[in-house]
Amino acid sequence: MVLLTPGPVEIHERVLKALSEGIASHRSETYRNWHCEAVERLKRISGLRDGSVYLIPGSGTTAVDAMIYSVLAPGEKVLAYIVGEFGRRAVNTMKARGLNVRLLEEPWGKAIRIERLKEALEEDSYDAVFIVHNETSTGVANRTLREAAELVHKHGAILLVDSVSGFAGERLYMDDWGVDVVATATQKCLAAPPGLGIVMVKSDVVERIEKVSKESPPPPSINLSLYEKFLAKCETPFTPPVNVVRALVEALRLIEEEGGIEARYREQEMRASRFYSVIDAAGLDTLAEKSARSYTVAAVRLPEGVRAPEVKKRMAELGFEIAGGMGEYREKVVRVGLMGAINADIVEAAARSLVEIIQELSRG
Amino acid sequence: MVLLTPGPVEIHERVLKALSEGIASHRSETYRNWHCEAVERLKRISGLRDGSVYLIPGSGTTAVDAMIYSVLAPGEKVLAYIVGEFGRRAVNTMKARGLNVRLLEEPWGKAIRIERLKEALEEDSYDAVFIVHNETSTGVANRTLREAAELVHKHGAILLVDSVSGFAGERLYMDDWGVDVVATATQKCLAAPPGLGIVMVKSDVVERIEKVSKESPPPPSINLSLYEKFLAKCETPFTPPVNVVRALVEALRLIEEEGGIEARYREQEMRASRFYSVIDAAGLDTLAEKSARSYTVAAVRLPEGVRAPEVKKRMAELGFEIAGGMGEYREKVVRVGLMGAINADIVEAAARSLVEIIQELSRG
Repeated sequence: MVLLTPGPVEIHERVLKALSEGIASHRSETYRNWHCEAVERLKRISGLRDGSVYLIPGSGTTAVDAMIYSVLAPGEKVLAYIVGEFGRRAVNTMKARGLNVRLLEEPWGKAIRIERLKEALEEDSYDAVFIVHNETSTGVANRTLREAAELVHKHGAILLVDSVSGFAGERLYMDDWGVDVVATATQKCLAAPPGLGIVMVKSDVVERIEKVSKESPPPPSINLSLYEKFLAKCETPFTPPVNVVRALVEALRLIEEEGGIEARYREQEMRASRFYSVIDAAGLDTLAEKSARSYTVAAVRLPEGVRAPEVKKRMAELGFEIAGGMGEYREKVVRVGLMGAINADIVEAAARSLVEIIQELSRG
Repeated sequence: MVLLTPGPVEIHERVLKALSEGIASHRSETYRNWHCEAVERLKRISGLRDGSVYLIPGSGTTAVDAMIYSVLAPGEKVLAYIVGEFGRRAVNTMKARGLNVRLLEEPWGKAIRIERLKEALEEDSYDAVFIVHNETSTGVANRTLREAAELVHKHGAILLVDSVSGFAGERLYMDDWGVDVVATATQKCLAAPPGLGIVMVKSDVVERIEKVSKESPPPPSINLSLYEKFLAKCETPFTPPVNVVRALVEALRLIEEEGGIEARYREQEMRASRFYSVIDAAGLDTLAEKSARSYTVAAVRLPEGVRAPEVKKRMAELGFEIAGGMGEYREKVVRVGLMGAINADIVEAAARSLVEIIQELSRG
């Protein structure tokens, strides 16, 4: 079975092997070397020259929670511009944190529009703006983060980005674009096992985190000011999944060996292009508007009468594990992950099988 | 190097191998089978017949955070009876949650005293009482949880227990003793890799969690009401560390194969007895009062002039990785983990080496 879900993804045998390389104390030199290497490599990938990278035991959701609870204090004003399920979830998290949230929303399948963001920022002032880089529920990539960051800064706010399924697959250059905070996880485009959330922050955000932690401390497990203290010695405040950290290091080495992050971006684009070509040629459509189709997660609309669970089942019989839609698209869409230790041929083969299955099912 | 830290611990080669058995989607039958098996086996070990077991991506701290934020709502009154560093940390978590905390504290090295608990409960009324089962910082086991639970219930409160380094090493029978909530993690006495927090709750606590979540929702990643919803299908709401869950299953199978949890308790007692015999014979003392010496973590006091970092270094040269003390005992105590895939002979050998090193260093 080839894992083509929107995460976890197939992982390279070297990464799998690294998982069981052995256990180590998280207060040992062995662990510290892994931790430092992971942080340095993540900085290179994210284009973060001046800032901190936190490895947080947990999932992508843990990373987003840590970002929201550590960077923002109750009562602060946030503009959340969301385009799908994971945006909605982040808004719920912001409400649980006691933030004053204004919501901007696009219909599922659409990307954010810079003009709407501009208008909203002109109408009112905010402490922060939140955007999902790559919306896993709809297969939409928001590729205007650079323009968004410029506007956000012009209006005195900071930009928080959920890039759980975008990071290392969809272009992002933190310092050059001015993206202040990014949350992601190991089990998507990084092609490592699940178990670690990652939050990357520019250096001026570190001060903000200290202040928030003093005034309205988040739960310790997601309190980034504690992670900052231990980062200096390449450790985490609480026991990390040491085996997963070791495996992440291997996955990061692979990125470099395969030509670096730019090569990885081109690989994702190529896989996506081959996938969408097959879909388009068959006259099928995606949930995402064409210009915003994600390079990491494809969401294919199913014709009337064809249901996602049946398509998933047939794909599994052919050896491809894919996912259904989310929310109101649960049965109307299938989602195919284009990430991980696979290649464009596998992606194209999956697309061809998917087309055949959908055509067969829609003929009844 | 033999890992004798208070976690992570040595893990059996079958458990290590299970880690890299492969990756699986957390929405697949394969994963669900692992999850269900882990939950069923954990119920047997904890003596929880009627209740829920939640597997939470993260660390032991994540489990304690999840317990405090999901079971208790801001403003509720908690009596925290603490005996060391991890108790203090939980109190900070309670304050971050906005709880009304009354603190009872014993000097480091002492166990809780049931008479003091009784007096405190008679003086005032509380929604909950919090106790650390096995205080990792001091090597103290609180073995009066049954009596504590009886008192707590008599006064209309519930008992929350941090058993991160106690669970599966120090006796605990949730239903029989009336312990309402227990938080633990994979990398201590369960001898699995780190990466998962575990929270176990009696069935009436599930209703409480629902209510708290509606009125004062915790951050999603530690919101147990979300975990409850997915538990019905043997899943987690957010991507779990699937490889760690698989490894946990193997670690739990080993407990059963080796004679079940009672045999594991006896094994820990035997290791502890052999360790403390060597220490006592050498005229050394533990931080813990004798009657409360933990079966899972031993904290040995160092004579004047002997410092923990030096003792750790010498032990490492002999192949034993141990830990220093915590807080004010940072340099005055060394802590030796008695947990994990080792045996009593290794523990005794470590104790003998420790004695020799301390004697040598104290001779100057």
